[in-house]
Amino acid sequence: MSKNEKLTFVALGGAGEIGMNMYLYGYGPVGDQRFILVDVGLTFPDMDTTPGVDLIMADPSFIEARADRLEAIIITHAHEDHVGALGLLYPKLQAPVIARNFTALIARQKLERSGLDPKVVQTAPVWPETMTFGPFTVGFVPVSHSIPEASGLVIDTPAGRIFHTGDFKLDPDPQVGEPFDEEMFREIGASGVKALVCDSTNVFSPRPGRSEADIVDPIRSLMRDAKGLVVATTFASNIARLKTLAQAAHDEGRSVVVLGRAMNTMIQNGFASGVLKNFPPTVDVKESDGIARENLFMLATGSQGERRAATAQLASQSYMGFRLKEGDTFLFSSKTIPGNETSVGRILNLMSETGVTVIEDDDTYHVSGHANRPDLERVHELLKPANLIPMHGEHRHLREHVNIANAKGINAVLAPNGTIVDLTGDTAQVVDHIETGRTYLDGKVLIGAMDGVVRERIRMATRGHVVVSVMMEADGTPADRPWVDCEGLPDPQKGVLSELLEAEIDEALERAKRSTLKDDEALENLVVKAVRMESDRLIGKKPVVTVMINRFDEG
Amino acid sequence: MSKNEKLTFVALGGAGEIGMNMYLYGYGPVGDQRFILVDVGLTFPDMDTTPGVDLIMADPSFIEARADRLEAIIITHAHEDHVGALGLLYPKLQAPVIARNFTALIARQKLERSGLDPKVVQTAPVWPETMTFGPFTVGFVPVSHSIPEASGLVIDTPAGRIFHTGDFKLDPDPQVGEPFDEEMFREIGASGVKALVCDSTNVFSPRPGRSEADIVDPIRSLMRDAKGLVVATTFASNIARLKTLAQAAHDEGRSVVVLGRAMNTMIQNGFASGVLKNFPPTVDVKESDGIARENLFMLATGSQGERRAATAQLASQSYMGFRLKEGDTFLFSSKTIPGNETSVGRILNLMSETGVTVIEDDDTYHVSGHANRPDLERVHELLKPANLIPMHGEHRHLREHVNIANAKGINAVLAPNGTIVDLTGDTAQVVDHIETGRTYLDGKVLIGAMDGVVRERIRMATRGHVVVSVMMEADGTPADRPWVDCEGLPDPQKGVLSELLEAEIDEALERAKRSTLKDDEALENLVVKAVRMESDRLIGKKPVVTVMINRFDEG
Repeated sequence: MSKNEKLTFVALGGAGEIGMNMYLYGYGPVGDQRFILVDVGLTFPDMDTTPGVDLIMADPSFIEARADRLEAIIITHAHEDHVGALGLLYPKLQAPVIARNFTALIARQKLERSGLDPKVVQTAPVWPETMTFGPFTVGFVPVSHSIPEASGLVIDTPAGRIFHTGDFKLDPDPQVGEPFDEEMFREIGASGVKALVCDSTNVFSPRPGRSEADIVDPIRSLMRDAKGLVVATTFASNIARLKTLAQAAHDEGRSVVVLGRAMNTMIQNGFASGVLKNFPPTVDVKESDGIARENLFMLATGSQGERRAATAQLASQSYMGFRLKEGDTFLFSSKTIPGNETSVGRILNLMSETGVTVIEDDDTYHVSGHANRPDLERVHELLKPANLIPMHGEHRHLREHVNIANAKGINAVLAPNGTIVDLTGDTAQVVDHIETGRTYLDGKVLIGAMDGVVRERIRMATRGHVVVSVMMEADGTPADRPWVDCEGLPDPQKGVLSELLEAEIDEALERAKRSTLKDDEALENLVVKAVRMESDRLIGKKPVVTVMINRFDEG
Repeated sequence: MSKNEKLTFVALGGAGEIGMNMYLYGYGPVGDQRFILVDVGLTFPDMDTTPGVDLIMADPSFIEARADRLEAIIITHAHEDHVGALGLLYPKLQAPVIARNFTALIARQKLERSGLDPKVVQTAPVWPETMTFGPFTVGFVPVSHSIPEASGLVIDTPAGRIFHTGDFKLDPDPQVGEPFDEEMFREIGASGVKALVCDSTNVFSPRPGRSEADIVDPIRSLMRDAKGLVVATTFASNIARLKTLAQAAHDEGRSVVVLGRAMNTMIQNGFASGVLKNFPPTVDVKESDGIARENLFMLATGSQGERRAATAQLASQSYMGFRLKEGDTFLFSSKTIPGNETSVGRILNLMSETGVTVIEDDDTYHVSGHANRPDLERVHELLKPANLIPMHGEHRHLREHVNIANAKGINAVLAPNGTIVDLTGDTAQVVDHIETGRTYLDGKVLIGAMDGVVRERIRMATRGHVVVSVMMEADGTPADRPWVDCEGLPDPQKGVLSELLEAEIDEALERAKRSTLKDDEALENLVVKAVRMESDRLIGKKPVVTVMINRFDEG
């Protein structure tokens, strides 16, 4: 390792939010470093800040400009917030994609759906086997999480070893996939970890995490005791949970129906990758007619209240002809993600109207996939890192994680998105900041969060939109009365608002100087101002105003 | 009581949501009943369903049409969801407004702010004194809640006694105002309650509610132990909490600063009504400069993350020149209302960036103002109602409350908004349904939720808006090329989208039949379709399209 070679870390996404994970490691001479990118995740839009947007991901500009030095894209696991943007951003990155078997399967599907070549995805072996990408030697360490084959990464470099946890929990009995291997963690720690880059999402949860095994018996009891149909929802990718639920239903004599494309696809992926074995037999919903409700169990997508998913459709009417009834039991085997309370609440009320018994927000039937505070502390102790960089969390999660580490005497660095951390020496330190941001998929187009498109939409949504057509003669006098169309504005009497605004513009044009009328920009400003003021006076709203000026000045 | 006289109850708002309470009691011959209206409350808009809307209230149409038979408007307490719409809806109702002293003060302020005469508000005495309004004799029973002088109502009618709880909790030591008077409840019950109309908001909270007194010592410890400035936020109307916080700070040697207009107004209202006594002396924020941070305490509005309130401004920058610093402590002495998690989270992260110690979501420093499940059961037992009608709750809360009552052998009626319940006989029963809905204050205009205005805004916010100006000759041929303006649409290259859409419209006009071009509606449909399809093909979005057609057919 020559003197001017640096080992650096920067979060492009995920260190400042829960979602859109994208982390970049660099090694080499400054300005000529080689890179590996860990995860290419998504986050989801909301009406408050991103109406109409389809998907949100980290702005890849920094690595896009250095893509010729990108050695590999490594995906830790197949959740959308880690792999969801792969198909969208891959054209800007163009490097081999490396993941374990199940994750690789999903990654290939993402690329295919974007019309890209799935062959760029390579399947990684499991630690202690490793793969080398330029100066980086990477090992995939099995960790438990709420999806199969999640991985922590041992990243060995000439400047030392990094452990990048990915998302993880410490589950000794995860039902599907590998249990937490304390001995493996201890061994990795024993060889010296320079930096632990660590999941922070559950840092505020004070009690040790529970095992997937803890909910098996309660779920089985529920399947036994419920008098009618049981439907359960959870994340489609939580294959262990799907199996627990379906197996309990099957063991209690219920036929299993799987609703929703996402869930069926995930079960197929489980089979194809070999992670899911012995799933009970399933019945098509169309064939479930003849089965008594008390002998039936359904798995449904949409635990977060998504309007098009099976759960929402079952709640509001029917899904593929099937309806819920009074006496049925609906289990949310899930946690409502902050921000989704209203959507989930809407469904709970619809089910209440039908008289369905709903079980939700009940830890008896759900465990988290992330490490809680005591679990994080245990990992700190096992790996004994010289430095800790919290990742995957909002700012407050990262800060709390720093506080926990500091309290134990570990040097911890608060490094939100864009913070370049130098890991070359013994003590990690912040050396620079780069610009980061968000990229939106809007329809078929990728746009920057700061492009103004979404701001325009929010303004129309809160203020309404007035469109004015003005026709002017070549001599600068109005050719006709102006014409106004109002969208999204309250009209005290139908059509009256437009007429009053037209009259106001008319007057403003009459009062205006000829020079104003001849100048498009001055004319536009005049009309916009007249409409805003009059609308505010009439209805108390200052709308967005668009002026279309037509001039007859052709020869 | 003659045979065809009926005692009826119907919720116009509040039985189907938490918020916008408005309940109507009727007594008399069907078609000629006399009425009292209980509460005229608000609820708050959100971007998901009501972008740009200022306030939401129940649609008063049913009682507006019968306003000549409305004997009184009774306000149980001064929370916005019970009195907030009074100034807006009073012109449609026009009946005496009755409330206890503190509530009456706020009610008068609401009317004055709407330019109405505050003298219509009469101050009610406290039970066992009563007031009579037509066939109704009403007594205001002091109950504890998170605002002073909250009241349950004893409503005596020729058909029997109703107890309408309003919002309440069972607090033996509420710090400000009257404690829960078990004996009074028992006496009211002993005389026979035909129907208990009962708050349901906390029906899913399984443990008995705690007293305001329980948090006094922890708050005092916090004020003592904090090293720097302490700021606390809570609802401005929670005068008991304001006093608890300020008194603890004062007792620990901190000067008290009150930030935000709402909080200062509420404290003044507390003095003016006599409910608030011995509030510690306060210091103006401008005079707080000279005071050491560890000797300072601030009360701030905005516990729900409201963007313009003191808390949000302190978090993002400064409030009236005052800034938070690392080492300060910020206490949320409040609970985040479902749906506000994202707004509050934004503030927590901003404070994390500054390094402020934040305490939130911590029951040590907050108690709810509503009766939990065991408290509700205790009230059922004290009042021994023949019938129970759950109110103030989403559908699921009402249903759960019905289930609890049924389990104890009480006849309970699930009566969401618009359900007319006949209370004349021994057993309450649903006899009819009326149309109910929501009214929006949008700017200065009251509009119906179904008017389509908000739907138009949501469509513009999610799809963008394309405006097309088309000029046609008198003979039906295009006079000029069409002109397109795009608002809120992603443009792969600046201005290119408009040009491509213009070209597409041009082609569509060229291909169109003369008859289509001569007919405004047919021409509009043609243009809308062309824009939608081409936009979908180019950018994957189908926008809202407005077409302005100018025809030169003047003589």
